[in-house]
Amino acid sequence: MVTEDEAMGRAIALAARGLGTTSPNPVVGCLLLSADGEVVGEGFHAYAGGPHAEIVALAQAGERARGGTAVVTLEPCNHTGRTGPCVKALVGAGIRRVVIAVDDPNPAAAGGAAALREAGVEVALGVRRAEAEAGNVAWLTAVRRGRPYVTWKFAATLDGRSAAADGTSQWITSGPARTDVHTLRSTVDAIVVGVGTVLADDPQLTVRDLRDGSLAITQPLRVVVDSAGRTPATARVRDASAPTWIATAAELGTGPDGRVDLSALLSTLYARGVRAVLLEGGPTLAGAFLSAGLVDRVIGYVAPKLLGAGLSALVDAGVATIAEAIDLELTEVVQVGSDLRFTATLRHKEA
Amino acid sequence: MVTEDEAMGRAIALAARGLGTTSPNPVVGCLLLSADGEVVGEGFHAYAGGPHAEIVALAQAGERARGGTAVVTLEPCNHTGRTGPCVKALVGAGIRRVVIAVDDPNPAAAGGAAALREAGVEVALGVRRAEAEAGNVAWLTAVRRGRPYVTWKFAATLDGRSAAADGTSQWITSGPARTDVHTLRSTVDAIVVGVGTVLADDPQLTVRDLRDGSLAITQPLRVVVDSAGRTPATARVRDASAPTWIATAAELGTGPDGRVDLSALLSTLYARGVRAVLLEGGPTLAGAFLSAGLVDRVIGYVAPKLLGAGLSALVDAGVATIAEAIDLELTEVVQVGSDLRFTATLRHKEA
Ligand SMILES: NC(=O)c1ccc[n+]([C@@H]2O[C@H](COP(=O)([O-])OP(=O)(O)OC[C@H]3O[C@@H](n4cnc5c(N)ncnc54)[C@H](OP(=O)(O)O)[C@@H]3O)[C@@H](O)[C@H]2O)c1
Ligand SMILES: NC(=O)c1ccc[n+]([C@@H]2O[C@H](COP(=O)([O-])OP(=O)(O)OC[C@H]3O[C@@H](n4cnc5c(N)ncnc54)[C@H](OP(=O)(O)O)[C@@H]3O)[C@@H](O)[C@H]2O)c1
Repeated sequence: MVTEDEAMGRAIALAARGLGTTSPNPVVGCLLLSADGEVVGEGFHAYAGGPHAEIVALAQAGERARGGTAVVTLEPCNHTGRTGPCVKALVGAGIRRVVIAVDDPNPAAAGGAAALREAGVEVALGVRRAEAEAGNVAWLTAVRRGRPYVTWKFAATLDGRSAAADGTSQWITSGPARTDVHTLRSTVDAIVVGVGTVLADDPQLTVRDLRDGSLAITQPLRVVVDSAGRTPATARVRDASAPTWIATAAELGTGPDGRVDLSALLSTLYARGVRAVLLEGGPTLAGAFLSAGLVDRVIGYVAPKLLGAGLSALVDAGVATIAEAIDLELTEVVQVGSDLRFTATLRHKEA
Repeated sequence: MVTEDEAMGRAIALAARGLGTTSPNPVVGCLLLSADGEVVGEGFHAYAGGPHAEIVALAQAGERARGGTAVVTLEPCNHTGRTGPCVKALVGAGIRRVVIAVDDPNPAAAGGAAALREAGVEVALGVRRAEAEAGNVAWLTAVRRGRPYVTWKFAATLDGRSAAADGTSQWITSGPARTDVHTLRSTVDAIVVGVGTVLADDPQLTVRDLRDGSLAITQPLRVVVDSAGRTPATARVRDASAPTWIATAAELGTGPDGRVDLSALLSTLYARGVRAVLLEGGPTLAGAFLSAGLVDRVIGYVAPKLLGAGLSALVDAGVATIAEAIDLELTEVVQVGSDLRFTATLRHKEA
């Protein structure tokens, strides 16, 4: 026997398993409790086009769901997309009460709670809302903004250098930090870099097991922001291991600086179903994203080293004086191998 | 009734109260336990020329010390400096047993344990040694190296900038971090900066209460490293609030780069009784100290901000390629106000 609150905690954990494979859909988790409070079914949305969390859980519970409670991280959908509406399925299965963490901001999918109430189902909204929102932050933010949620990731020394004076940068951070980056990549839909990084480092930008180099089954889209199409034909980012998009000025237009229009880049990615973007640099492109206010989260891997020379982690972020500094809110600092990982969100200044 | 181990913990805490005022002496704490294990006296060495910890504790205990145990963080001295030897005082007071954390590396003062044993006193050495060494790290390291223990302190943004593009740097860090720096200053004997910092910022470099600006009673020596004597006559660092030394090439000679010889600087400070130095920058002087292997500890205040331009926290530290990066061992990361304070020691590479 579990409480509804505990059940929501479990549903949120289940939802997270879908990160990286559900876009353009959110991650969702669902627990079904029988009339006497036993868990009779659980499910999560695993991939776009696959069954919704509620449907998975209902299939597992069968008749034991009747008269029971559905505990679900996001308002059940009421529209018929690639799968039928969840509201209908819940009502049809005889669910008496639905406990929801977050309401659906997507106009096409919303209205689920109202439809449930109309069908005589009891609805409780807002249980563990903050925790569930955090678990779905990329998708929720993307839907609200109409552009993907952008995480800028960088690796630097304690004095803010991303490469030494001679350009060497392998490896600033420890093995565990590099493995952590591959895990991070596996949660996003697209990895974005500037052509400068491709020309300097020729990275592959895939999700791999670093022990044996084997590729993960699902790979994010690789995006090179490359105004003039300078990405070499032989660049590793063009290999067959994952899809790639060379985003040029010819295709997207330019901003005032004559380089790829970054808002157009993000809108195009959104239209292609991308909800979570990992911006992996380099310092110039990161500066341009930050100047344009297009970064939502920063993840920095900081190595306990000093260089005193070499490439800075960030260049030209549009800040001229200390009062204009980009303010971050640190949400987590943890040790990863011998490095520290900082996670922070941007404090967006009120205009 | 306390155990000897607990008593040593208390003695170490007492010792720390002397930090910043005992040089060229170490900090020392002492507890006296009566024959039945009651605390009958405690003391610490408060200032150079003042009574040693043992003497303070013995005075407090009086006759109750007879037959008891002295628990002391450092081997009692056996020489007659400005005050008489502690060994004689302990024996004279009828102490039966002496428990010591760390032996004295100073040849002039050593031999205390042997002298106690000769006088028939039981001696136990090494209780909580690591903890007591950490409490006296500056003095112990200084005596072993024959130069002051150097802590480089810096303040920077998460991307390693110490000032914005237009040179503004007030305030990168939060009020609590600035207060913390004043506490740090109060534990050292000298504050060292380059003339570049004096010309740019005109700092006062005193230990103050930041709420009302009132000066602490004891002030560290202010040192400006200034090859050609460019420190202005009106610089605040020359005011009457603390002693100041403008360290020039004329007085100290130069290194291969024609600037003040930093080894000579540190030897001279050592000869003047300085054991702990706080190097407060700027980036150029810090780079020169690091290149020369003259930094023992780094304390970085990192603000959760991004600048993307402006002065780097560290310049020219003699590192050309990533394999030569200066490796640090992080010993502490704590939040101070809205900033993070990193404390790290240098991993000295074996030659
Ligand atoms: N440690 C780390 O975390 C990390 C991560 C990545 C890279 N790096 C290092 O970064 C270095 C490369 O740095 P970088 O700054 O030259 O490369 P970058 O930021 O990857 O690429 C910059 C280039 O992106 C193109 N671009 C297109 N549209 C843009 C826009 N709107 N705004 C800004 N740039 C736009 C520009 O070239 P066009 O105008 O030709 O398009 C620009 O020169 C490499 O040495 C690499 O090792 C470090
Ligand atoms: N955020 C922070 O933690 C922090 C702390 C301090 C300063 N700062 C900033 O740092 C800036 C000043 O930087 P800076 O690098 O010009 O100043 P600096 O490091 O304080 O001073 C450098 C100067 O020290 C002198 N010097 C003498 N002997 C030296 C030696 N052996 N090696 C190196 N330098 C030696 C040199 O001038 P001579 O050859 O003429 O002697 C050199 O130009 C200011 O803008 C200040 O705001 C920031």
